[in-house]
Formats: sequence, structure tokens, C-alpha cells
Amino acid sequence: MFPKGFLFSTSEAAIKRPGRKDLALIFSQREAGIAGMFTTNRVKAAPVKLDMEKIRSGRAQAIVVNSGNANACTGEKGMQDAREIVSLVAGGLMIEPSLVYICSTGAIGVPLPMDRIRPKISKLMLGLGESTAEDVARAIMTTDTFPKVVTKKIKIGSRTGTIAGICKGAGMIFPNMATMLCFIMTDIAVKQKTLYKTLQAAINNSFNRITVDGDRSTNDTVLVMANGMLGNERITEKTEAYHLFSKALNDTTYELSRMIVKDGEGATKLIEIQIRGARNEGDARKAAFAVANSNLVKTAMYGNDVNWGRIMAALGNSGIVLREERTDISFGKVSIVKKGMDTGRKSKALEVIKRKEFTVLIDLRIGKASAKVLTCDLTEDYVRINASYMT
Amino acid sequence: MFPKGFLFSTSEAAIKRPGRKDLALIFSQREAGIAGMFTTNRVKAAPVKLDMEKIRSGRAQAIVVNSGNANACTGEKGMQDAREIVSLVAGGLMIEPSLVYICSTGAIGVPLPMDRIRPKISKLMLGLGESTAEDVARAIMTTDTFPKVVTKKIKIGSRTGTIAGICKGAGMIFPNMATMLCFIMTDIAVKQKTLYKTLQAAINNSFNRITVDGDRSTNDTVLVMANGMLGNERITEKTEAYHLFSKALNDTTYELSRMIVKDGEGATKLIEIQIRGARNEGDARKAAFAVANSNLVKTAMYGNDVNWGRIMAALGNSGIVLREERTDISFGKVSIVKKGMDTGRKSKALEVIKRKEFTVLIDLRIGKASAKVLTCDLTEDYVRINASYMT
Repeated sequence: MFPKGFLFSTSEAAIKRPGRKDLALIFSQREAGIAGMFTTNRVKAAPVKLDMEKIRSGRAQAIVVNSGNANACTGEKGMQDAREIVSLVAGGLMIEPSLVYICSTGAIGVPLPMDRIRPKISKLMLGLGESTAEDVARAIMTTDTFPKVVTKKIKIGSRTGTIAGICKGAGMIFPNMATMLCFIMTDIAVKQKTLYKTLQAAINNSFNRITVDGDRSTNDTVLVMANGMLGNERITEKTEAYHLFSKALNDTTYELSRMIVKDGEGATKLIEIQIRGARNEGDARKAAFAVANSNLVKTAMYGNDVNWGRIMAALGNSGIVLREERTDISFGKVSIVKKGMDTGRKSKALEVIKRKEFTVLIDLRIGKASAKVLTCDLTEDYVRINASYMT
Repeated sequence: MFPKGFLFSTSEAAIKRPGRKDLALIFSQREAGIAGMFTTNRVKAAPVKLDMEKIRSGRAQAIVVNSGNANACTGEKGMQDAREIVSLVAGGLMIEPSLVYICSTGAIGVPLPMDRIRPKISKLMLGLGESTAEDVARAIMTTDTFPKVVTKKIKIGSRTGTIAGICKGAGMIFPNMATMLCFIMTDIAVKQKTLYKTLQAAINNSFNRITVDGDRSTNDTVLVMANGMLGNERITEKTEAYHLFSKALNDTTYELSRMIVKDGEGATKLIEIQIRGARNEGDARKAAFAVANSNLVKTAMYGNDVNWGRIMAALGNSGIVLREERTDISFGKVSIVKKGMDTGRKSKALEVIKRKEFTVLIDLRIGKASAKVLTCDLTEDYVRINASYMT
């Protein structure tokens, strides 16, 4: 079951090419609270700029999304186009334009084909309720190979609330910056400040801890809408249900972010890089990302090559405090490096590296800080996908 | 012609596998001044640690090099092995061990096969003069596809001095950190301080301005030996020949570094990223490397995809000050972005991107600082080479 009061619609505007749904609308029957986080890339797409203004109000009722075109690097025209779509949607839904958010994903530097989009907007309105969340997830896919939807139930007193998340992305940066987009809906009533705080925490433990190729798109957007239709006592940091809600939101974003890495362009393996014993949290994160983003580590994983030297070199390049002669490395439960030296257990480690999912644990044995990052391997298919995306 | 007084020798010790020369010796008939620069990776190979101690004296007479094994992450045993090789070479040449430098390149975390290396050391001595610089360049190759040698002549008064450089490397980091190594020899007399200063400047404009995959090996080493056998007045910053020497050294390292990128693993294209109009030099370098290291930019180059959005996003992620609406981008002489917007000249730019060598010029139009970085494209072959190096 889905959170109460959210309706979906999808349509085909042939934005990049015909043959698939590429427009989607998420509508809450009741005005909702909203919180969001946006790309930290200095080059931001028009819809991101627009949403960042809107979200200050903390209010929302609809999100319109298109795939096939990122509406990024499109100048003043791009802003006008985004505003026009918002106006058309607001007009059709008979709500204030300030309650309508917009997201785009796809090719960059290309103006939106407004002549093809305009006539489909009214279709979107008419179709509300005829599509499912999975249809929306499909409509916003670019190089994704599967739609990404997660739902969680939470018991609050005698009522059962729902959190549902839809996301797309096949990397932290995608072909042509095709973006990570994530829409979370809940019928649970949550105080706006609390919604933002829990979202921030959830993202720090999920989308901010994954990497496919170490970059960030111009369009990355996560929005969470809470319409309160469950009728529960509004959740704040002081209410009993706070931790339940917080955990469910965490689980939702974590599972979605895992799906993104699993669907990483060309990836065949999902790898968790765990750092322990770092001097501080900053070092732990830096080390985890240095390993997770190293092309040489990622190609070795792909090639079933228990090449721990590449991990050591990536750590050495990360700028963190480390001592080679203290560092331990394990693949799964197999220790391959102890105090900086080979343990001679390569054949055992080979069994681990051949799996579809495994953990690389690095203990720096300097301090007490730790961090985890999810990554994937780097394959010929990644190159193929990204070399031929546009042409 | 080669600089006077330098002799070469190569031998086969079957370090990784039999069938090729993998040991090399460079010997100066007269004691030489030496300057060097080493990897900034915190994880340093045993030979790097040893050379960093030795070089404080500024004196040298021989360099012994092996390929097939990096002698990195090999602990105290690795240091002992490196010292033993140095002793054997020094004994054979009847010179002080402090005058013998050692470099290694190849697999990491594996002890040197000393039983196979020891018996070949005396062979190396006996063969001195029987090999050429190109033989040395071949013996130190790992994934390189061609040997890399550059020579430059300089007229100093009535005499003609020579600078010769040998290097290896197929990326800034190589499979198993197989390393960038560079040995420069000259018969020109140069004051030690001046030698170091000119080397530093030359490297900043060459090896420090190239990237294949954005990492740094545990073994990177550049050594320059000046034996003074030309008999010129010793060059200092005040002598007339200083600028000539400095320029020749610059040209040598620049040409060698260019060869490395051209030979980048799997690369099909050599691309110069030029930044202009940056706020300061730090920003210019950061921007150039952000573009040069972006997997998405590099795969687009490979795929002949004039995908300037990926360049813009890489700039946006670099952390520099930029204004999208001011930024200009050209491929060769073809302007594709003017003030952040597409110029509609993609078909013209396509002719440029299809070339084996071209320049991408990015004008941020914010300040006056500039920087240049050489990079290459990212291909399926890069993945193939690095996925299958060890196994």
C-alpha cells in the first residue's frame, strides 16, 4: 500500500525520442510539508534553481518531472521554460504555482522541446490516479536498468503510516549529468523542521555515501513531501514516533541509494568500503571515498584481482594520516594485509572478490573513527555507455 | 649523440617472468651531482625511501633499476633487499654505496626475487657500455607500448652539451602502481642547487601537469645526474647558459611527459586542457585537473561526443569560483560554448574531437590566471588492461 493521498500520472512527450513515457506528475490531494536537498555542484540546472527558491516556504502539493533533457546550462530561456511548465501544471491543478516543484534529467545544454511538452501537461492532469509509483520510476529512468521504488510502514499508535520513495540514477553522476533524483512521500504528519532534519541525516547515511564515478550532477535533487493524511499527532523531535520515523526514512534512502550503486553504469559488483581506526571522521570518509573512487581499485574488482596494493596506494594518495606498517585489509572475512604486509591468503580472498556483493574492510589502527561507502566495479560497459550516450 | 661519460647495461633476471630484460644500470664514469623528486604518496616503496635519504648528499654515480616488481609494501625485508642490491652494485663498480641509487617498478606487495636478481648484478657490471639508452628505456617498461627517450643539445660557449632523458610510464598511476620513472643525464656541469631548482621548475611544467587516471604511484621518481664531463664553467643561476640549460631541461621533461600521456593505458587521443581567466593559479590548476580527470569527459572524448555539459559539470564540481553565464569553451579553434550557452557549432567541433590530438580551451572570464594539463581519453582497453594486470 502507498501513502494516502498521493496520486501519480505519466505521459509521453517524446522529449529525447518517442517510444516511452518521459513526463511524470506526483500530486498530493492535500497540501504537504516539504523538505529537500540539492546538488552541491556550482553549475545548477534551471529546475534546481527554481526549487531552491520555492522550498523556503516548506509547502508543496505537486512535483512535475521530465526525463530526456536536464534543462541545465540553458540560461534565462531554461528558467522561463521551467517556470512555464510550473504555471501550466498549477493552472491545471488549480493550485498556487509556488506549490509545484519541477525536476529534469537527461541531456545538458539543450533547450526543452516546449512545443512537445506543453500539449502533454493537460494529459498529465487528466491521467492523475491512473499511474503507479513504479510507472513514475520508469518515466524518470535514463541509463537505469530497473525502476527504483521502496516503501516502509510505521506503526504510530493505532495507525499505520507509510513512507514511499522513488528514485532514479545509475551513478553519482550520470551520462550528460543525467542526475540522481529522489522523491519521497509520506502520509505521516511531520513538523517541517523535523522533516528537514531527518532528511538531512538520512541522506548523509545514504546518497552521500555512494559513488559510481565520484562526481556530482547539475540536477541532483531529493524531495520529501509529508501530507499528514494519516491524521497522527505531528511528529517533532520530542514525539515518541520520532525515532521510528527517522529510522524508516533512513532505511528508505539507504535502500534506494543501494539500488543506484547496484544499477551503476556497467557495474557487475556492489562493494562496501569500510574504514575503521581513522584519526577522525573526516579522514575516515576521505579514505573510504579515495578507495571507492579509484579507477584502479574498481578495475581490479572487476577483474577478480586481489590487488591490495592499489587500495594501499589509494589510501596513500587520500591525504589522510596513515601508517603503512599498521594498516590491515580484509576482503569479507579474509585478512589479506596485516600490519601493511601480505598475509599470503590471496586464494581465499579470491573467493570473496568473485561474489556479486562483498565488503572491503580497512583498519588504519590510528584512531577510532569509521566510515562506510558503497561503490561498484568499473567495466568496459561503463566506458561503452558513456562514450556513446549522446552520439 | 649521448651525454659524455654515461654508460648503460641491461640484463634479464626473470623478475616477473622470463623473456625480456628487466634489470638496467646507468653509470657515470665520473661522480656526478644529482637532484631528484619523488612521489608524494604517503605510501612509498622501499627504493624511494632509500633514495630520499641518499639524495641529501647531492652526489651520485650509478642508478640500478628493475621492472616487474615495485618493492613496495614489502616492509623491512624490502628495505634490506634494496640495500643489498645497492651494495652489490657498489661493490662491483668499486664505488661507495652512497653513490648508487635504486628504482623499482612493477607489482606491489611482493618481495623481490633476490635469488634471481643477485647472480645478474655482476652481469650488469660486465655489460656496461654494451646497451643503449633505448635498451634501458625498454628494460624498465611495464604496460608502456614504446620506449621513451629524449635528447637535447645545448651550445655553451664553444662546447656542445647534451641532456638525455629516459622515462617510463603509461599513466600517472599505473597498474599495480607500476610507476612513472624518469632518469635524466647531462654532461654539463651544473651547481647542485641550480640543478635541483631547474628540475623542480621543469617537473612543475611537465610531469606535474599530466594525468591518465588522476592517481600517484608509490614509486614515482625523477632523477637528474650532471657529471660535468663537458668541462664547461659550472652553471649557476648567474651564468649566461642558465636559461639555455633551464629551457633544455624543461623541453626534455615536457616531451617525456607528453610521451607518457600519449602512451596512457588504452588511450587513443592526447588532449590538452587549457584554463584561462581563473581567479588565481590554484583555481586554474584545480579546474584543469577536474576536467582532465573526469571519467565522463574522458569517455565522451573517446566516443567523439562533443558533450560540453560534462566539462561544465566537472568545472562546477571542482570547487573553484566560476560563473556559468561567463564561461566560454572551445574545442581547438571552434567555439562551442559562449557565455555558458551552446553556440550550435557541434558539427564543426566534431571535426576537432575526431583528431588524435587537440586542445580544449576553457575561459572562465573571472580573473587572469591560467593552467594547462595534458590528459588522454578513457577507453574499454584501459579497463581491460587494468582488470587483467595481475591475474
